[in-house]
Amino acid sequence: MTLPDPIGWTRDGAVRILDQTLLPDQERYLELDTVDGVAEAIRTLRVRGAPLIGIAAAMGLTLSARRGPVSLDAVCAAAAALGATRPTAVNLHWALARMERRAAAAIAAGDELGQALRDEADAIREEDRAMCARIGAAGAHLIGGDAVVLTHCNAGALATGGMGTALAPVYTLHAAGRRVAVVADETRPLLQGSRLTAWELGRAGVPVTVIADGMAASRLRLGDITCVIVGADRIAANGDVANKIGTYGVALAARAHGVPFYVAAPTSTIDPATPDGAGIPIEQRAAEEVTGWRGHAAAPAGARVWNPAFDVTPAELVTAIITDRGVFAPGDVGRVAG
Amino acid sequence: MTLPDPIGWTRDGAVRILDQTLLPDQERYLELDTVDGVAEAIRTLRVRGAPLIGIAAAMGLTLSARRGPVSLDAVCAAAAALGATRPTAVNLHWALARMERRAAAAIAAGDELGQALRDEADAIREEDRAMCARIGAAGAHLIGGDAVVLTHCNAGALATGGMGTALAPVYTLHAAGRRVAVVADETRPLLQGSRLTAWELGRAGVPVTVIADGMAASRLRLGDITCVIVGADRIAANGDVANKIGTYGVALAARAHGVPFYVAAPTSTIDPATPDGAGIPIEQRAAEEVTGWRGHAAAPAGARVWNPAFDVTPAELVTAIITDRGVFAPGDVGRVAG
Repeated sequence: MTLPDPIGWTRDGAVRILDQTLLPDQERYLELDTVDGVAEAIRTLRVRGAPLIGIAAAMGLTLSARRGPVSLDAVCAAAAALGATRPTAVNLHWALARMERRAAAAIAAGDELGQALRDEADAIREEDRAMCARIGAAGAHLIGGDAVVLTHCNAGALATGGMGTALAPVYTLHAAGRRVAVVADETRPLLQGSRLTAWELGRAGVPVTVIADGMAASRLRLGDITCVIVGADRIAANGDVANKIGTYGVALAARAHGVPFYVAAPTSTIDPATPDGAGIPIEQRAAEEVTGWRGHAAAPAGARVWNPAFDVTPAELVTAIITDRGVFAPGDVGRVAG
Repeated sequence: MTLPDPIGWTRDGAVRILDQTLLPDQERYLELDTVDGVAEAIRTLRVRGAPLIGIAAAMGLTLSARRGPVSLDAVCAAAAALGATRPTAVNLHWALARMERRAAAAIAAGDELGQALRDEADAIREEDRAMCARIGAAGAHLIGGDAVVLTHCNAGALATGGMGTALAPVYTLHAAGRRVAVVADETRPLLQGSRLTAWELGRAGVPVTVIADGMAASRLRLGDITCVIVGADRIAANGDVANKIGTYGVALAARAHGVPFYVAAPTSTIDPATPDGAGIPIEQRAAEEVTGWRGHAAAPAGARVWNPAFDVTPAELVTAIITDRGVFAPGDVGRVAG
């Protein structure tokens, strides 16, 4: 099973990323050697997916100390620049806060700052890989056999340091020889489902069918979907889930047809400081994402657009949350976090 | 208020259509002088929208007798070719059956066949224009004042011989000086909402906001939508409604948020011969509509796609059906038809 490797180090310690905005047309890698370069890559979604954003920010922060020792203030300023790129993903802030603590400890102890930051970033990435595997095992156990999984956006290997979150149970079942197939919402406006999810599943040999987002409700009515699994950008303490725009409509349709709706995410996605979904900031993105695509107008010039990047699915529509620490009812996640 | 004119006659009796596949980039008109040319235009959605398809087929059928008298068999063969273009729209078959009856009567009476067909096509078009106006009046009365209307696909002037079906109440309220705005689902895969609905509303001076289809549920939760109004391609005798794919998910979200969900359609859209939605044939369209757009890959080469053009919204999710004969509960349409 061949999974993509969306992030890594170059030999001289720069950050190498797969430019996901060019998929599936081109598989092109960028070598980024500045904090600003990594921040730009996160902001423009060249690197995306909540867990991978955390990893990219951590790896990007190491570049602040790449040319020699710097002050803790300089590290924190770099972290602030990286943290300002995407407001909704909680992993981003979680990873940067952890990197800042490590920087402070290294400076206090007189350790080499660059190496300390790199070790911490590697640890975050390695832990993410292990978390994905545990989510995969927990989800595969929950599903228990052959399955057709409907998913939205991309919460796969391209979104994480490992085999993904929502797609981890799929890959785990596939690797175990189960018959598992995926129906992938294309996920407008940026088409992460058709561009990314279909691409990585195809490479891994998992059968995938792409549908437009408006087809999900009809497909759920068709009766062949075992369950829905989506990722999460932030989970509030009460179990409300912020995820890619369009998730909420899928959850409503799954409920209407009695299809289980699962959220798969590392426990670092749970934000105990946010009591419920109303407290989750929702990033508004540029009109151009909706009005045009690769230079072609999809709407009249100057058309007004409403383009929230995420929506909130209320806890009552979530059947269960699949985490690296096991499967929980949404109402229980507040106790799991931290 | 400037509305587009999507179909007309050329001076020498050919059919002039606005090529809707090129909007909003280009406003280009085609002059079609053969039945096959009109059939191709319907099949490829250069002309689309259930009422306009009926008009286009009727006008196209006149071309079978344009070069002089032909047999009834020839007219019926041409009608069959036009009727085979789109399986779901009931107006298409309704209009063609009416044209065939007129052809038979003209031949039996010794009338000039070409003129008889042209008169009948003009009558169908003129009746459609009047029906749109009546739907507009009925819908405006139902809404009763300022409104924000969410719509899916395009059931406006570009879909009919008049001011549209779903958009007719909007235009009627706008012309009466009410503050009315529209939130338009872009409507993947063919983007009739962002390309067509936003274009014609903008020309008419009605404020419009474009959203991706996956945003509709979130927008309905926001609380500023007065009602949803969509068109219909076919309404079964029990009130089940076939309309553009994605309509059903919007109906589920409207129900979840207590927002009225209206269907606006001429009574010719009601098919008393189809008892319920299960009997409505759903056209499956080519994978390429989903996997690419204007030459760019939106999915990996060879990706499997499920691409139904329509879905069925069950009658129980429909608040009311706005027709040229007034507003009806969905369960009552079986008695209205015919």
